[in-house]
Amino acid sequence: MPKKIIAEAFGTMVLVLFGCGSAVLMGDHIGMMGIALAFGLSIVAAAYGIGAISGAHLNPAVSLGMVTAGRMQIGAFVGHVAGQVIGAILGAAVLYMIASGRAGYSIAVDGLGQNGFGPGYLGEYGLGAALVFEFVMTFIFVTVILGATGPGSVAGFAGLAIGLTLVGIHLVGINVTGVSVNPARSLAPALFVGGKALADLWVFIVAPLAGGALAGMVNALGFTRA
Amino acid sequence: MPKKIIAEAFGTMVLVLFGCGSAVLMGDHIGMMGIALAFGLSIVAAAYGIGAISGAHLNPAVSLGMVTAGRMQIGAFVGHVAGQVIGAILGAAVLYMIASGRAGYSIAVDGLGQNGFGPGYLGEYGLGAALVFEFVMTFIFVTVILGATGPGSVAGFAGLAIGLTLVGIHLVGINVTGVSVNPARSLAPALFVGGKALADLWVFIVAPLAGGALAGMVNALGFTRA
Amino acid sequence: MPKKIIAEAFGTMVLVLFGCGSAVLMGDHIGMMGIALAFGLSIVAAAYGIGAISGAHLNPAVSLGMVTAGRMQIGAFVGHVAGQVIGAILGAAVLYMIASGRAGYSIAVDGLGQNGFGPGYLGEYGLGAALVFEFVMTFIFVTVILGATGPGSVAGFAGLAIGLTLVGIHLVGINVTGVSVNPARSLAPALFVGGKALADLWVFIVAPLAGGALAGMVNALGFTRA
Amino acid sequence: MPKKIIAEAFGTMVLVLFGCGSAVLMGDHIGMMGIALAFGLSIVAAAYGIGAISGAHLNPAVSLGMVTAGRMQIGAFVGHVAGQVIGAILGAAVLYMIASGRAGYSIAVDGLGQNGFGPGYLGEYGLGAALVFEFVMTFIFVTVILGATGPGSVAGFAGLAIGLTLVGIHLVGINVTGVSVNPARSLAPALFVGGKALADLWVFIVAPLAGGALAGMVNALGFTRA
Repeated sequence: MPKKIIAEAFGTMVLVLFGCGSAVLMGDHIGMMGIALAFGLSIVAAAYGIGAISGAHLNPAVSLGMVTAGRMQIGAFVGHVAGQVIGAILGAAVLYMIASGRAGYSIAVDGLGQNGFGPGYLGEYGLGAALVFEFVMTFIFVTVILGATGPGSVAGFAGLAIGLTLVGIHLVGINVTGVSVNPARSLAPALFVGGKALADLWVFIVAPLAGGALAGMVNALGFTRA
Repeated sequence: MPKKIIAEAFGTMVLVLFGCGSAVLMGDHIGMMGIALAFGLSIVAAAYGIGAISGAHLNPAVSLGMVTAGRMQIGAFVGHVAGQVIGAILGAAVLYMIASGRAGYSIAVDGLGQNGFGPGYLGEYGLGAALVFEFVMTFIFVTVILGATGPGSVAGFAGLAIGLTLVGIHLVGINVTGVSVNPARSLAPALFVGGKALADLWVFIVAPLAGGALAGMVNALGFTRA
Repeated sequence: MPKKIIAEAFGTMVLVLFGCGSAVLMGDHIGMMGIALAFGLSIVAAAYGIGAISGAHLNPAVSLGMVTAGRMQIGAFVGHVAGQVIGAILGAAVLYMIASGRAGYSIAVDGLGQNGFGPGYLGEYGLGAALVFEFVMTFIFVTVILGATGPGSVAGFAGLAIGLTLVGIHLVGINVTGVSVNPARSLAPALFVGGKALADLWVFIVAPLAGGALAGMVNALGFTRA
Repeated sequence: MPKKIIAEAFGTMVLVLFGCGSAVLMGDHIGMMGIALAFGLSIVAAAYGIGAISGAHLNPAVSLGMVTAGRMQIGAFVGHVAGQVIGAILGAAVLYMIASGRAGYSIAVDGLGQNGFGPGYLGEYGLGAALVFEFVMTFIFVTVILGATGPGSVAGFAGLAIGLTLVGIHLVGINVTGVSVNPARSLAPALFVGGKALADLWVFIVAPLAGGALAGMVNALGFTRA
């Protein structure tokens, strides 16, 4: 397995372990603000830890935006996404092992940090709100990533800027969808939890990919490129 | 529409979506500290995402301070402010769409993150306190921005410094006025909410513009310029 | 008044307004964690806003450590401290104006963010604990500042590092003394509040100055200098 | 005592004072999120304060990873670990002095920030979960450290990246083990508290050292090295 795929797998494992892990293991103690911070700081960890190897996308919607922005080939995209999916599943598996170490833990009740919407999911926002939120926020997220790593950017700051942007997105939307903006992050817990999480999964694949692809196109057209 | 106006619109949309969005959609879960963080991190997102295009002012009071400091022409000022107002309204519109996706949401009751003061608004501070707070804090904010982007500054740090300064300002004043220091950020939700929000709006146009203009003049005179 | 004194006054005003302001105006909403953040972020604001002018000491204990480390003359020290005291008092005055804009505010009951110890003050820690905490923490704080701005440091990071260190110190000690590590920050609210705050003030002058002076000497001897 | 040992002792003292100190003195006020922040910010303080002298490992598992990654000699490792253990014990001693300054404090009841697992310790996670958590998280932590300070890294960012990574790890695991990933941080409070803390200590020596050693080997083999 080439080094870039390993790096993406490692980074996405960290994303799921930190983000979903904080929700499952510590949610009652740190609240949605702590969970928001954990998701964002996983990006900081991965960006500075393995960013020099693979760019630390950790997210198929980000890699797709890199493709539509003309900064990544399709072949590399496939490898990156493979690493991201493997890493996310690995992270969910390790998280499940740790969570099961508490006597009262039940994956059916406590979940594994899965995304969702509608009746029974957090703020019970509707499908329309979920689609708008995920589409707009991924568009913003990928636009920021392309700018922070593109022409005119200063070396070294992208990891902090992107991680803190993801904190901001979570501070707006955990109650809406749990915040995906990342199909790999949504897929892994859904595979373990099944049921409603799997049924809702399409939203967290379609909307982020659409938002990321559009952000790349708008960037390629020069509207958001310095 | 020139690229700079698009960049200011994008960035100010992010400011309203993150800041007002966190208050409306997540306020009960993350408290005033989470809202403070969301406002500040929107600056980080915009500064590194589109700062290389337009400077990421996102705020008419900041652009006015740039004018009085002698670092921006009136023509560019008008374009920047147009982009900021368009972006803020766009952000408020998207936020309203998402917020409406929750069954119990009512703009009259839950608001849209509007600023205010006096009876019925958060800590019920009086007009005088609101004026002093907004004037002094915008003076501080714009002084920091001019310094962090002016002579003697190190490339790359301004976005973090300015965003974290805005977090600090919110940690002092959300209970006082909801914190504006930015006429565009105040205008957009007031247009949607109407009533008291519109009646109070002049404070959040006059005081920030006065504070920002003064900060630019003091800087131009050399008192706060390295 | 020379520019350096104005810069120190501006920065120390920001420190008192953000730090003491968050405690007085928002303490019930953001808790000790929000207050900790506000104190630290005031340093970030000042360091990037006016650091290129005066170094942004904002604190007589820091300036004294610069003297004992051999990096500042006595004459400049006097000017810096004058600016710090003026700025702190100005910040406390503005804060008092804003706080008074809330109907129920009473300086005798709600205070102005003053430091203290013993019966009736927060965690009711004794004088010994207060002295040890303030001495050790100022020693750590000034050692970090001297290192982050001294040989081997990378340009631009000091403001973030020092501000976040001050957040950390507050996360340990608000319940002990309210955290001073800075005689100017303690003096200003004590002058307005009087009584016990003034009686306790000597601790927050003596211990920080001793800790800062020692940190400078240890640095000058080479033990903590790269 | 050479300067590097002093630097490691100073930094590890700061780690214990900030991290364990926030838990013991402020835990009821700032919650697990505040404690997470305090641990991470101690790394920021030490990295920028004394990192230019010793690299600011502050942790035998980090130093061991540096050895297995081929970036540190055994002789230097022994000196570093000696400094770390001395500093951690010094930090715990100062913390005990301050904590004892509150009338109701009892080390048997309130502890000194010690790690643990099983019945009676926080979330009451089992030994298996504790071992998996500590091993995986130290592997991640040391991999990030090696990457953030290795080939392809940009000067200056490592301290922030590593500190924020440690915040993230704490946001996942305080309820599981209190989070060690650092034998020195675990040893010091256990020596003061005794009993169960000492009996559980082996986990927090074995698992972090294994995770750190493996991270160094994987890095040396090139899998996670740019």
